[in-house]
Amino acid sequence: MIEANLRGVDTHGTTRQLCIYVRRLQEGVMNPRTEIVVVRENASTVFLDCRNSIGQVGAAHAMRRAIEKATHTGVAVVAVTHSNHYGAAAYWAMQALPHDMIGFSSTNAPATVAPTGGRKPMLGTNPFAVAIPAAEEDPVVLDLATTVVPFGRIQLHAKQNKGLEPGWAFDTDGNPTLDPHAALKGFLAPIGGYKGYGIALAIDLLCGVMTGSSYGAHFPGFLAENLEDPTDVGSIFAALSVASFIDVDRFKSGIDRAVREIKNSGKAPGVTRIYVPGEIEFETKRQRAVHGIPIPEAVLADFVRLGSDLGIPFPQVVVRK
Amino acid sequence: MIEANLRGVDTHGTTRQLCIYVRRLQEGVMNPRTEIVVVRENASTVFLDCRNSIGQVGAAHAMRRAIEKATHTGVAVVAVTHSNHYGAAAYWAMQALPHDMIGFSSTNAPATVAPTGGRKPMLGTNPFAVAIPAAEEDPVVLDLATTVVPFGRIQLHAKQNKGLEPGWAFDTDGNPTLDPHAALKGFLAPIGGYKGYGIALAIDLLCGVMTGSSYGAHFPGFLAENLEDPTDVGSIFAALSVASFIDVDRFKSGIDRAVREIKNSGKAPGVTRIYVPGEIEFETKRQRAVHGIPIPEAVLADFVRLGSDLGIPFPQVVVRK
Repeated sequence: MIEANLRGVDTHGTTRQLCIYVRRLQEGVMNPRTEIVVVRENASTVFLDCRNSIGQVGAAHAMRRAIEKATHTGVAVVAVTHSNHYGAAAYWAMQALPHDMIGFSSTNAPATVAPTGGRKPMLGTNPFAVAIPAAEEDPVVLDLATTVVPFGRIQLHAKQNKGLEPGWAFDTDGNPTLDPHAALKGFLAPIGGYKGYGIALAIDLLCGVMTGSSYGAHFPGFLAENLEDPTDVGSIFAALSVASFIDVDRFKSGIDRAVREIKNSGKAPGVTRIYVPGEIEFETKRQRAVHGIPIPEAVLADFVRLGSDLGIPFPQVVVRK
Repeated sequence: MIEANLRGVDTHGTTRQLCIYVRRLQEGVMNPRTEIVVVRENASTVFLDCRNSIGQVGAAHAMRRAIEKATHTGVAVVAVTHSNHYGAAAYWAMQALPHDMIGFSSTNAPATVAPTGGRKPMLGTNPFAVAIPAAEEDPVVLDLATTVVPFGRIQLHAKQNKGLEPGWAFDTDGNPTLDPHAALKGFLAPIGGYKGYGIALAIDLLCGVMTGSSYGAHFPGFLAENLEDPTDVGSIFAALSVASFIDVDRFKSGIDRAVREIKNSGKAPGVTRIYVPGEIEFETKRQRAVHGIPIPEAVLADFVRLGSDLGIPFPQVVVRK
């Protein structure tokens, strides 16, 4: 979670999730003890039952196993069942980078997206991440939800009474809408219409159905929305060893070259810089590693309260504005 | 190519591609002799140099090897270099289905898409396909290019002087445009803006840079656009054995159930049916397997001419209108 904050992905950082995670542990709806069981194992695959443990613990275990197996066979896929919200997908894919591997991770989530032509949410935002190592350039790290915008963006526009852009969301009837309040009751639009719906479905069938976890409309509410039922998330992790295909040095310098070509290519009017996926997050991390992670005062108060509830003394706080 | 026609994907069928393929072979820009060389091999990976052979021949070989290895280790990835246009991505992913495996295939292509903020095409439409077996329902087969619409759609609108929909394309300066003629000189929009750009880039880095094939803006023209230089396409194929994670029967009936839930879910106003990815193609195939593949007269004339050029007698033609 701290890494997500460092990378500027505050939606998946301590600032938004820590208190919710602790609450779920306190309510007994997520298991603080990690009892991960190997259900099936093959030379290049592992299937783990995480038994409702913290999502990050299962994910770390799964990605470690994927990397270890890929070292021997070239590629490995690890699936987990009965797990929980695992934070930022990119973090898991990036575990492969120091091993000169390409990392992949994906997870399903409670339904907020309707199939094309539908009016009922049947699929989650189902994000996936791909991490590709480079030499001198930052690694290319793609991490995306399969919707055009996150639900938080709709909430923000609703709060500000600001219209949505076309193609972002639908109302409860399944009609496209620019009204943030109608969209709040409705659902999000997948990227590329039926294409994003297809990607979200494929991820749900692999992460959910294949692992015997929740899928489609069967999810109970997520995170703070439901403090009674385990979420039962399924996730997939993969590692692909670059050396199985090409010398690592040649690969990494090739990625550098490709990245530079894109960054130096012609820019549209008014654009001063072209970014590659993950670049903004690496820059943010370099800044925040020096200057710290900005924490809104309300969140800080939550942290102090949480620490005092749990008997953990909070370090001295100096509010910088 | 015939399978693509049967599935209604005529853009990748004989109707559009056969004469171009033959022309490339005649011009010596694609090698009719298949000399596929294993460059690297591991327990779960193979890297093949296709030496400019016909894309489909390399792809068939690659997918066969992926399935064979996944049978033993649970998952396998095969990459090919120095190959050519391989037809419809779905066809290769679908090879995994009779083996109760999930299939995947992806390829890069000459640049028609600019990075977000850019004005120069640096990436191809870079399609990928995922095939997931079911029991009584048709398999779920996702096959998508990472652009909102294909270039052919722009060409069609230009021919008809019909405006484009917002979000389809950009003009040469990188400004969004609704003018099909401006878009013809410009470039296509990726799905979900920077998200589709990221997916197309990740595919290019794996299919192109990792395999040492053409990538980014380095491609010579494709298919009929360039009859002098080999295209040097790179592609990736993968097979994942369902039984490594869950009993196959349980998986397939789970996919049936998930598919039916989506198809039976609430519909938006005016919508009579919700489709899952691949469903339209399976229906088209059932129809065309009975009634035949419709061939436009101009294409038929091309076929007859091609047959007579090559000394292959063409079967008796009865034109049905």
